[in-house]
Amino acid sequence: MKLEDLILVSIDDHVIEPPNAFARHMPAKFKGREPRVVQRNGRDVWVFEGRATGYMGLNSVVGRPKEEYGMEPLSYEQMRRGTWDVKARVDDMNANGVLGSLCFPTFPGFAGQRFQQYKEAREVSLAAIQAYNDWHLHDWCNAAPGRFIPVMIVPWFDPAAAAAEVERMAKQGVHAVTFPDNPTVHGYPSIHNAYWDPLWKACADNEVVICCHIGTGAKAEHASEESPIDAWITSMPISIANSAADWIWAPMWKKFPNLRMALAEGGIGWIPYLLERADFTYKHHHAWTNSNFGDKLPSDIFNEHIITCFIEDAFGLKNLDAINVDNVCWECDYPHSDCTWPESADTFFRQAAHLSDEVINKITHLNAMRLFAYDPFAILGRENCTVGALRAQAAHVNTQPVHGMGGAAPQRDPQRPVTSGDINRMFAAADAETAL
Amino acid sequence: MKLEDLILVSIDDHVIEPPNAFARHMPAKFKGREPRVVQRNGRDVWVFEGRATGYMGLNSVVGRPKEEYGMEPLSYEQMRRGTWDVKARVDDMNANGVLGSLCFPTFPGFAGQRFQQYKEAREVSLAAIQAYNDWHLHDWCNAAPGRFIPVMIVPWFDPAAAAAEVERMAKQGVHAVTFPDNPTVHGYPSIHNAYWDPLWKACADNEVVICCHIGTGAKAEHASEESPIDAWITSMPISIANSAADWIWAPMWKKFPNLRMALAEGGIGWIPYLLERADFTYKHHHAWTNSNFGDKLPSDIFNEHIITCFIEDAFGLKNLDAINVDNVCWECDYPHSDCTWPESADTFFRQAAHLSDEVINKITHLNAMRLFAYDPFAILGRENCTVGALRAQAAHVNTQPVHGMGGAAPQRDPQRPVTSGDINRMFAAADAETAL
Repeated sequence: MKLEDLILVSIDDHVIEPPNAFARHMPAKFKGREPRVVQRNGRDVWVFEGRATGYMGLNSVVGRPKEEYGMEPLSYEQMRRGTWDVKARVDDMNANGVLGSLCFPTFPGFAGQRFQQYKEAREVSLAAIQAYNDWHLHDWCNAAPGRFIPVMIVPWFDPAAAAAEVERMAKQGVHAVTFPDNPTVHGYPSIHNAYWDPLWKACADNEVVICCHIGTGAKAEHASEESPIDAWITSMPISIANSAADWIWAPMWKKFPNLRMALAEGGIGWIPYLLERADFTYKHHHAWTNSNFGDKLPSDIFNEHIITCFIEDAFGLKNLDAINVDNVCWECDYPHSDCTWPESADTFFRQAAHLSDEVINKITHLNAMRLFAYDPFAILGRENCTVGALRAQAAHVNTQPVHGMGGAAPQRDPQRPVTSGDINRMFAAADAETAL
Repeated sequence: MKLEDLILVSIDDHVIEPPNAFARHMPAKFKGREPRVVQRNGRDVWVFEGRATGYMGLNSVVGRPKEEYGMEPLSYEQMRRGTWDVKARVDDMNANGVLGSLCFPTFPGFAGQRFQQYKEAREVSLAAIQAYNDWHLHDWCNAAPGRFIPVMIVPWFDPAAAAAEVERMAKQGVHAVTFPDNPTVHGYPSIHNAYWDPLWKACADNEVVICCHIGTGAKAEHASEESPIDAWITSMPISIANSAADWIWAPMWKKFPNLRMALAEGGIGWIPYLLERADFTYKHHHAWTNSNFGDKLPSDIFNEHIITCFIEDAFGLKNLDAINVDNVCWECDYPHSDCTWPESADTFFRQAAHLSDEVINKITHLNAMRLFAYDPFAILGRENCTVGALRAQAAHVNTQPVHGMGGAAPQRDPQRPVTSGDINRMFAAADAETAL
């Protein structure tokens, strides 16, 4: 296979919601209460129910020189336009050779967790969730037919309403829902609790994949305030191993045999180890733990139900025989700092040199198309979906690093590495709440 | 190679301290204040400075039928004699075909952390640490010359005293110190802080390996109270990944080039992934993080300085080309529940079938002998160190599972798996403090 013939579908990217995302979709009843952006001290801040929330451009540093990756953009002007403008996003996807993209929310939290915390405002929270889903499907994804895999948010505080929202969006072609890898971190019942059965059932009935992004539940810890931030970055993806184990041993797979979930940004190289460890645990301990997989093993459960993805992972790609290659997908992580834009296609191609065309096609697009009921070929024609065809449309896109885009910066001391403490202090000082 | 010709040295086992461990070695000045065992309500409880501490037999379930692995032994009578009696231990090692063993402390905590917490009693704490080290070396290890790799505890509250203790013990042939994988969890400075330099220097000067056992700092989280305990067991070893990343990026390697540390019970199958991820992080982010490895990569640092070990790890053993095989060791984990006694030799042999004799010998004993300055052949003669030779001495050892040894038991409901909550409640109810 040639580089130009690759077809790349990413199941983990991020959208920065533009300021007007909610206004048009909020029901009349809650007009004026939609989440909105306000300007404070030269920055842009999302506000909902009187509370400022987070960073509107979390780690969206794509297009900067690497020297400025540590800065936190605090306004739309400090970000590349492709982060929040869908036309510019498609240009950037073309320049990167990327056909399709599943974009997690940003202001609502990767799993929509911000909308789950207003206990006195459930009705307006549900309206905001639905407005988000409508904006995301109609204004973002459908603005470029065939280029996006839509993903919805659901209300955790009302499993019946969550199931209804899954039904509503699935009818319109949405086959992914974002969900925290561990809801107990947010004060909600565990994935082992029957509380979630209506949601699981709706997902199973409608072939909707539960997408769990790293950091939405069990987070990578900063080992210490003095640790170089590189240590934290290193351990971020593998930090979802604890939750991966939890999902393997959860009860929904027996109840809903065609249900699937995805570990977003978790990488793949450590998965074969975890599966062997899970099988060892089962064989060695089930006599006292009462766990029972019938004629299966924990690794079978993982391989049937759990989707993995990776940005760069040469070791994982050398060991695809140890996991279910039909559930392995590729991801780009635009516009975050681990993203290799605009050279993502080239990076993947180098790591995939030893793979057959059949395996490459599964990983790059066929698995994602099958698992998320996504069919760009029917809309665009397969010949227009390749890296070569897409890049041919991007001659006008300037991919040179842009210096001085600005934002909050960690304290820099040339005598030592930037530490977790430096980054924690930067985020604390730039917290949106302080800007109101 | 034949099974009988294997020579097995384990760098991760555990000793249950016998009741009289400290009395003989405590200096006259602190006579009567040594840690001691008292009987309360049918159980045995360690007491030091007026406080009962933990479980004297933490998870020491070796020799039980698997159905009783979940029970927590609360007295010496509830444990196999080999856990605390060195003669019986050697019998059990022989039956298992194991030549050598590095035994972590139990009552003091795997890293000796209990002796670091008495802020008003530093002098007696140091005396207890030294008494422990003397007991461990002279009464435990030297009771069976050539059969143990001694490991010392040091005082964290006084780095100069820690360095002096390293010197004192190294002079007597001790080349391992137990240390938490993340001391900040215990309120001590991070591994990036110059506070520890005297300790690192003493270790480097005396070829003493820093041994970090899983659970001594960053612990595996219970994902939820409702999670099957199997999920927690699955994720226990890989939970040290966060600390492994932290050590890779720590500054002691440049200052003390021959210093080494070991990740005990971490497994090996996920290490190649982590090293690739660390190198990616460095190449992709160092421009803004200031990290600088000169002409090396983070993976080089790991491969030079960090020792790994595994109980069972077929996937890791298939990928030894992706890590430094000269720093990979085997472990048994006697007497804990993951241990495969009395079939550890057989288990390893099955997983090592594809390896050359040279690689098998490195992993099973040559690496451990070199790294820990341990030379059993000089004492016992190589021909007496093999699985075959050792098992021939163990005909009298009864290795049949013993039923009904007793202890605290988790609540059992045949309708569902034993959960993290069940185990947490069992430990809380059996806490030693409640027995005083």
